[in-house]
Amino acid sequence: MRDVAIIGAGQVKIDEHWDVSLRHLAFKAVKAALADAGVAQVDALYVGNMLSGELAGQEHLGALVADFAGLRGIEALKVEAACGSGAAALRVGYVAVAGGLADIVVVVGVEKMTDMLGGDTTAALALAADGEYETSQGLSFVSVNALLMRRYMYEYNCTHQDFAPFAVNAHRNAVNNPYAMFRFPVTADRFVDAKMICDPINLLDSSPICDGAAAVVLAPAEMARSLNAAPVRIAASAIGTDALAIHDRRDPLVLDGGVISTRRAYEQAGVGPGDIDLFELHDAFSIMAALSLEAAGFAEKGQGVRLALDGEIGIDGKIPVATMGGLKGRGHPVGATGIYQIVEVVQQLRGLAGENQVKNARLGMAQNIGGSGATVVTHILERVE
Amino acid sequence: MRDVAIIGAGQVKIDEHWDVSLRHLAFKAVKAALADAGVAQVDALYVGNMLSGELAGQEHLGALVADFAGLRGIEALKVEAACGSGAAALRVGYVAVAGGLADIVVVVGVEKMTDMLGGDTTAALALAADGEYETSQGLSFVSVNALLMRRYMYEYNCTHQDFAPFAVNAHRNAVNNPYAMFRFPVTADRFVDAKMICDPINLLDSSPICDGAAAVVLAPAEMARSLNAAPVRIAASAIGTDALAIHDRRDPLVLDGGVISTRRAYEQAGVGPGDIDLFELHDAFSIMAALSLEAAGFAEKGQGVRLALDGEIGIDGKIPVATMGGLKGRGHPVGATGIYQIVEVVQQLRGLAGENQVKNARLGMAQNIGGSGATVVTHILERVE
Repeated sequence: MRDVAIIGAGQVKIDEHWDVSLRHLAFKAVKAALADAGVAQVDALYVGNMLSGELAGQEHLGALVADFAGLRGIEALKVEAACGSGAAALRVGYVAVAGGLADIVVVVGVEKMTDMLGGDTTAALALAADGEYETSQGLSFVSVNALLMRRYMYEYNCTHQDFAPFAVNAHRNAVNNPYAMFRFPVTADRFVDAKMICDPINLLDSSPICDGAAAVVLAPAEMARSLNAAPVRIAASAIGTDALAIHDRRDPLVLDGGVISTRRAYEQAGVGPGDIDLFELHDAFSIMAALSLEAAGFAEKGQGVRLALDGEIGIDGKIPVATMGGLKGRGHPVGATGIYQIVEVVQQLRGLAGENQVKNARLGMAQNIGGSGATVVTHILERVE
Repeated sequence: MRDVAIIGAGQVKIDEHWDVSLRHLAFKAVKAALADAGVAQVDALYVGNMLSGELAGQEHLGALVADFAGLRGIEALKVEAACGSGAAALRVGYVAVAGGLADIVVVVGVEKMTDMLGGDTTAALALAADGEYETSQGLSFVSVNALLMRRYMYEYNCTHQDFAPFAVNAHRNAVNNPYAMFRFPVTADRFVDAKMICDPINLLDSSPICDGAAAVVLAPAEMARSLNAAPVRIAASAIGTDALAIHDRRDPLVLDGGVISTRRAYEQAGVGPGDIDLFELHDAFSIMAALSLEAAGFAEKGQGVRLALDGEIGIDGKIPVATMGGLKGRGHPVGATGIYQIVEVVQQLRGLAGENQVKNARLGMAQNIGGSGATVVTHILERVE
């Protein structure tokens, strides 16, 4: 197995892009990543996307994006793992380069959730949940998360307000990220007063429906040195899975997929939670942020919210999360999110995160979650000196 | 890079399975393949599927199928490349094992096209074509193929009847395949008189809408010897791509994706078309069979139909195709098809193809096509003595 480096990263501002099509969004991200890497040709292109069929009237994105990006002929395919599609596509790219079956690979995550040709975004997102046991009973995707949040509050005797630090932190960090959708701060008071979506989840617990694309270019670390001044090494890449339906899990308040995925990643990198300098977690809903911190070993069971209340998730805290705004502040174009997280960790490790820079960041972890935890993809990136 | 072997194969009879759900179909194929391989645990599961979101109300098949098959926790994800999804998933599995990132991997192709929760199958299949340049103009997927067939007939001065041997051959071979949907022969006369679907494509030019699942188990060849008496080696695995829209190709009657994909596969295996003993081609429509034979080097440009008319595609012909019925006779559950093709080549190389056995088959090629040729996935399998 070869060491794999990220030699280029690019992203499109997350927004409601009414004037830009799905293929064009993907192209912009690919172009930016290739330019950043300083390469023009690649061996393969992998696309992370969840809902192009349902919302944009288009499947077959691998060949489509390859062709539109001027790379016609190369190996291309789409990878889907619900909201974890972006990082799952990166995993496929990593495997190809690490195993020596490809040298230069571009991985792009793209999702266009507005301006849809047909269908309904809320119904489409529910395809991440169990169709036979959850959505057929009337559950939407937000209501699955609402059940988890209500249970968490009951089991651990905490209030809705206790989750405020996740939204406050994410929005504060998004202010300084030119690619973020919501570049304004929110207060804990505003969090409490936000519109109810699905009790107890309100608007400020929830990431937005939006459009976006982000891409990275991978190469063998050996080759990376000659191509790029500041490559970032992929120290670990791992997927863990669990039951889709939350009633069918060992414990609905433990993300076993996250536990498995993180354990595999720590083993690969030879590190533990104490070594991680920042954690781009999957705060699609604030309850997911709390459960992720616990599954990844940054907090004991039931203590994820406490960690946030103690101020430890800020840029200068024990474990900075959502450093460029997270899913809540930067935005969550579902199949693209996993790659946005990676691009942001790369920014941090290159020391290019501006006012949000985590001091001396050497190891950054990104965790992308499909559904309410059935697929968890973890990557650990390392700054190369 | 390690040599990769197929150590187990399983399939479900293709049919309209009104009483079996998507996850159950996939489970049956996985179970059969694992039993055939004699293994109970795997490192990863990759699912090839195109339309579960649109037709079965379910995305996120990787974790879902892994869990339902009793493999909760393992790495799992879905691969999509339109009708080429099955073989594209095999490619991902092959890369993981060849590169040494996984040892035992199961790849399952599954599609449930009947009994759909919502949507329309014809509209869903059109998601394989270019949404902005083809389907938005009113083209369905069959009409894209009809344009190609009409052009072929015009350019090469042949008649619709000249395509009859493809359907006659496929149905003749399907008779002896217990997993095939259409186990009855058709005559050239019946072909000519079949109901028109989209001029010049009629019912007997077209593969059916159906449900199915097939799976294979991969392992390093080294390990395979101790696990299974008759492993089959994957001698080549390659993807080539082209523009989705047929107007945008170099020549609409040349499948450049196929040319690229086949060339890469021949190079990897160190063989040429003359060495291939059977060819499971992608006869979703009979025009695709003709174009595939030409792209893969078995016939000159415009001579694919001639090869069939000369009787060279039968079991005893120069290049037997659709030996177990092909997409036309066995059936074409789109995302599953690529794995059915592989399972059938494995049957042939193991000498278990019964009355359809190709004598002394040593090298079998399978080619799975996404859309009207934008993604072409080629695998060459070799009998291990």
